[in-house]
Amino acid sequence: MKRPTIADVARRAGVSKGAVSYALNGQPGVSESTRARILAIAEEIGWRPNSAARALNGARSHTVGLAMCRPARTLGVEPFFMELISGIEGELSARSYALMLQVVSDHGQEVAVYRRWWGEGRVDGAILVDLHVGDPRIPEFESLGLPAVVIGHPSETGSLLPIWSDDGGAVHETVEYLVALGHRRIARVAGLPRLAHTVLRDRAFAEACDGVAEQVTVHTDYTGEEGARATRRLLSSPSRPTAIVYDNDIMAVAGLSAAQDLRLDVPRDLSIVAWDDSPLSRVVRPPLTALSRDISAYGAHAARHLLALVSGASPGPHEEEAARLTPRGSTAPPPGQVR
Amino acid sequence: MKRPTIADVARRAGVSKGAVSYALNGQPGVSESTRARILAIAEEIGWRPNSAARALNGARSHTVGLAMCRPARTLGVEPFFMELISGIEGELSARSYALMLQVVSDHGQEVAVYRRWWGEGRVDGAILVDLHVGDPRIPEFESLGLPAVVIGHPSETGSLLPIWSDDGGAVHETVEYLVALGHRRIARVAGLPRLAHTVLRDRAFAEACDGVAEQVTVHTDYTGEEGARATRRLLSSPSRPTAIVYDNDIMAVAGLSAAQDLRLDVPRDLSIVAWDDSPLSRVVRPPLTALSRDISAYGAHAARHLLALVSGASPGPHEEEAARLTPRGSTAPPPGQVR
Repeated sequence: MKRPTIADVARRAGVSKGAVSYALNGQPGVSESTRARILAIAEEIGWRPNSAARALNGARSHTVGLAMCRPARTLGVEPFFMELISGIEGELSARSYALMLQVVSDHGQEVAVYRRWWGEGRVDGAILVDLHVGDPRIPEFESLGLPAVVIGHPSETGSLLPIWSDDGGAVHETVEYLVALGHRRIARVAGLPRLAHTVLRDRAFAEACDGVAEQVTVHTDYTGEEGARATRRLLSSPSRPTAIVYDNDIMAVAGLSAAQDLRLDVPRDLSIVAWDDSPLSRVVRPPLTALSRDISAYGAHAARHLLALVSGASPGPHEEEAARLTPRGSTAPPPGQVR
Repeated sequence: MKRPTIADVARRAGVSKGAVSYALNGQPGVSESTRARILAIAEEIGWRPNSAARALNGARSHTVGLAMCRPARTLGVEPFFMELISGIEGELSARSYALMLQVVSDHGQEVAVYRRWWGEGRVDGAILVDLHVGDPRIPEFESLGLPAVVIGHPSETGSLLPIWSDDGGAVHETVEYLVALGHRRIARVAGLPRLAHTVLRDRAFAEACDGVAEQVTVHTDYTGEEGARATRRLLSSPSRPTAIVYDNDIMAVAGLSAAQDLRLDVPRDLSIVAWDDSPLSRVVRPPLTALSRDISAYGAHAARHLLALVSGASPGPHEEEAARLTPRGSTAPPPGQVR
């Protein structure tokens, strides 16, 4: 699928390319009624001045798009996202590419934004993030023809190029570690339930605990506030967990403070695991056991694969190294256990 | 100053606008030598296809540029910068504007990037950040004619529109507070010495301490590593400070850990003040006394002023509310003082 050209408009209107050019450039040489008809057809098939101008000299925009369907205010608080962007930027800037960023309110708006950017020749490719289960953007992108990579598991990315890491394996490693320490009641404070990787982690967590530990998962919006609240509720329940795994570092740190405010000692009374790791996990006391991965490299790989696609190459799907468990001071055997 | 148009190329080449259009669009109607001459002139005066196409229908790009002259990897670790971007994005997305982001390696490259974006009609305006003393970008932007706001003190922004907050006042408030607690040896772990706001804070800090406290300022690159290192060196010196003010929260938290690793109690042995405040400052133990301001609002105001400029209005300079001192558990009278 290619961007519509002046030739497409001319063919549809049954006039010469020159006449289309006159009409679109507001020059004399065509009647007012023909001009109106040409403009209507150009509008209808989605022709835009820039795309033609660009198509003529084959110029790339040297820009990659990243639309984000999440509240702008969460950008500043989620280290994951910023590290991802910094990795993308590092790769793009080395090739003098810019990143076009727009916060959108839903997937429909996101698709419309990309349709416009692509039609106007403003971007050469796109990076899709925050993949949902059965994400409506996938079929839209497949028909749009805009080169795109998707940060998400291949089971959900259709014919688009996936960049992912094995979250399921990391969940299993974590649960096995906690069970080996002696924990039999493990909770997970998870992220947004509609995100594909949350569902994948949910399933892996239930599987990993099956037959070896009681488990409960609480979903949140990733903010420290909800992380603290979920922690307080879990710790006030009659069957209090002895270990909690958090889906991001902000919630893990907030959970640590919430536990300490309840006069619980970490790790004596409660073990805590953070996912992902970040400078935050290392500076708190005790430093947090965390699932570590190189998020900046993740972003860089996504950008590199996209630029390969844009240049006409056919890079294959890319699996990042899975997150590795890094034990620190926040995990220990549960209370009452021989240490 | 306006973007060059087809009419400018025609005038320079001594031909009709139609001939320029033929030449630029690769259509018949001009000789090869004329075509070559026209293309050379178009190149020379910086005409680009998009700008003409856009100028014809008066279209805006609905995009704002933000080039950043700092290592991409620092983006993910500086809460200030991400909160600023999230504030900018919040304002832009409400008006369906995109943000064009590019990391550049020096000011020359930054100006070249903006020159291209503006010439190609890719951005309607720009936000300048990380202002240096005698910043070479200011005169370049003044002659470029691209609407721009500068996050920086009016003394350094030439005829461009400044958005700033009174860092000097915040420094004085902090020093007066520490002196009132009884501190007489105060250190400051500062950011990059070439940034205009660092120089402004340096000067205010020296003034505020003059005659009331011994003072020392150590410059760093804003990373936690250098913050920790500066802290260890200050605390190992014979005239150890009893209070340290940090130019960002990452360094303050790293400094807190460094002090605790040296078996110093905060605030009993050492008082710590963080600038800026962030969720980080509140979750560590003890929570940090900090200079708080609404950074997201800062970004939103910058975006709003820029969009006003773009729409042809003449907004005035905007002074943000200065940072306010928020005392928490990390400050107390110095050792040996009656409490």
